[in-house]
Amino acid sequence: MRFILKIAYDGTAYAGWQRQKNAVSVQQVLEEAVERALGKNVRVTASGRTDAGVHAAGQVCHFDSNSLTIPPERLPDCLNKYLPCDVRAVAGASGGDGFDSNRSAKRKTYVYSVYESSREMPLKQRYAVRVEKLPDLSALREFASLMVGEHDFKAFCASGSSVKTTVRTVYEIRFEEGISFGSRDLKIYVTGNGFLYNMVRTIVGELFDLANGRRTAKSLLTAFENGERGLLGKTMPAKGLTLLEVDYGDALRFDVE
Amino acid sequence: MRFILKIAYDGTAYAGWQRQKNAVSVQQVLEEAVERALGKNVRVTASGRTDAGVHAAGQVCHFDSNSLTIPPERLPDCLNKYLPCDVRAVAGASGGDGFDSNRSAKRKTYVYSVYESSREMPLKQRYAVRVEKLPDLSALREFASLMVGEHDFKAFCASGSSVKTTVRTVYEIRFEEGISFGSRDLKIYVTGNGFLYNMVRTIVGELFDLANGRRTAKSLLTAFENGERGLLGKTMPAKGLTLLEVDYGDALRFDVE
Repeated sequence: MRFILKIAYDGTAYAGWQRQKNAVSVQQVLEEAVERALGKNVRVTASGRTDAGVHAAGQVCHFDSNSLTIPPERLPDCLNKYLPCDVRAVAGASGGDGFDSNRSAKRKTYVYSVYESSREMPLKQRYAVRVEKLPDLSALREFASLMVGEHDFKAFCASGSSVKTTVRTVYEIRFEEGISFGSRDLKIYVTGNGFLYNMVRTIVGELFDLANGRRTAKSLLTAFENGERGLLGKTMPAKGLTLLEVDYGDALRFDVE
Repeated sequence: MRFILKIAYDGTAYAGWQRQKNAVSVQQVLEEAVERALGKNVRVTASGRTDAGVHAAGQVCHFDSNSLTIPPERLPDCLNKYLPCDVRAVAGASGGDGFDSNRSAKRKTYVYSVYESSREMPLKQRYAVRVEKLPDLSALREFASLMVGEHDFKAFCASGSSVKTTVRTVYEIRFEEGISFGSRDLKIYVTGNGFLYNMVRTIVGELFDLANGRRTAKSLLTAFENGERGLLGKTMPAKGLTLLEVDYGDALRFDVE
């Protein structure tokens, strides 16, 4: 039987999702919790890796066990006893072999958080990135519209990754302004059918550079055409990025969360 | 000369503002930073103590030195080099002896943060408190209106504190709903001319109990009349509370933050 989990984590202390030799990963603490809670040595597969320092509010993962009798909806409470408090199982479900948390994913939404301040703010610096000045929102929206749709995002991809195709569809880039703890916030929601390594962080960095006039729409279009990473701005820091939701359409429905 | 600082801190790791014998306080790390940065052994006085675990986005404090030649607006960068990253000086100013960060304060605003979830959320649990279900907002507003104004808040005060009077004026209690990282948030802003020990946390706990029907407006009015702490609900946890702003009217103006 395939057990499916929705999990949330504060990525600050982790070397990302994937198991590493010399650093603690989210995958490792999750597999260890399954072993301690259920006595099963399993391999847990996620919807996708998250990088070192990246957070998740709705990562989805699965593992297989044919000898486990626990009802899937009771899994979270069971595992949370053995998980560190910065990693939490928030919902459980079961699925047939046809369901794969990676391959069955239809859409993913990430949120990138920034705040405006001349100095680092202790209450914001953990999950958001400081900028001296938030760019103009209408400019951000205009440039974002150039990125929405099906494009070859090769230029937005960190080198060294091996994927069959670098064509992805971005369904939506949405901006949300706010004020918290006395300073301005901006959250950038990016939804797509899949993302290349570092793609969301490069999208956000490029949007800021475009809106701040450091590059032009023309250079962006050239980057789409010839796929050169050097034509785009810097990759934004990991700590501002959170995997918000993975959508499987009708293939996955969690009970009460 | 009197040097005035606006400071922000993540209170998680601290035993509150005030110096303690066997625990690290915000006052201690600030006084140590002044000594290391400026070579002066000073006593730093704040607008008021914050409790263990309580955060601040706009605490104000001052210290005196007649031999210091640094321009006050340069103090924050100077001190931040010697402060841990969960305590930051965000603005500096100077004032005459007439200004006292405690006695000159006209209004203070605290914000209390909660979120709705059946389980602890790693990305929220540091600065907000989980509730199973957010109470009805119109009920909260109705009961809050009974607390606004000048009252004897003796029943809202933790025992053991010694103050001349327990009469305080609450100017405003404001509610702000939102959604972040996939779940509902509620922020409760409380502004008053001053607050007793644990008063904001007791106000919030009592508002929730009233809105959830655990107590009635009548018992609240009785608590105002006879000052018995036992008539009110529990004190909410420290980690949800942040000192947002201290207002000194025209007596204090910070330059660029």
